[in-house]
Amino acid sequence: MMYVIIGGAVGACLRFAVSECWLKFGKNAQLMTAVFVINISGCAMLGWILAKPLPEGIELLFISMLGGFTTFSTFCMEALELWRLKKRKQAMIYLVISIVGSLFGFLFGWNVRA
Amino acid sequence: MMYVIIGGAVGACLRFAVSECWLKFGKNAQLMTAVFVINISGCAMLGWILAKPLPEGIELLFISMLGGFTTFSTFCMEALELWRLKKRKQAMIYLVISIVGSLFGFLFGWNVRA
Repeated sequence: MMYVIIGGAVGACLRFAVSECWLKFGKNAQLMTAVFVINISGCAMLGWILAKPLPEGIELLFISMLGGFTTFSTFCMEALELWRLKKRKQAMIYLVISIVGSLFGFLFGWNVRA
Repeated sequence: MMYVIIGGAVGACLRFAVSECWLKFGKNAQLMTAVFVINISGCAMLGWILAKPLPEGIELLFISMLGGFTTFSTFCMEALELWRLKKRKQAMIYLVISIVGSLFGFLFGWNVRA
């Protein structure tokens, strides 16, 4: 349980840190929101971690951390916000490239270490 | 920062608890994995929370908690696992209903409270 608590807290802090940096330096990136970068990089890291067995505790710690780092709720909120602002095409593109990017991110991470 | 740490840890623990319960009681639910239920319910809760303003600290706490609760990385992993097992149709359905369900979940939560 300790691994889950620590992993979740560290993941959330990392997400917060990336979001803050993004607000500072990534203002010009339109569709590339912090959540987009977080989800794709988090999936790549999960693929990397799962490609070869790790000690059980360490693996649980990393999975909890990446579960806390990546997020589905803010991702949905951002897509709906684009939709509400009548940026319908952008909302659809955001959904599709987030999913496809994350799937390829996972496979990339996996293949780098496998 | 304290809100983010506590929210992330609580969210991760909740996710872990739901996953454990799911393993015990939800074995017969095929596509309805724990992550599926977690992501849709998490999006519904985020919609509910954001529908009306809350004190800033409380809002950050809840958003961090739901960020830690919902997950994108395990979602991608599950979809790829279905794909790897040659359950291609199931993988596609899982992706689509997760996204559509979460978007509607968010709107549902929002409308309940708005």
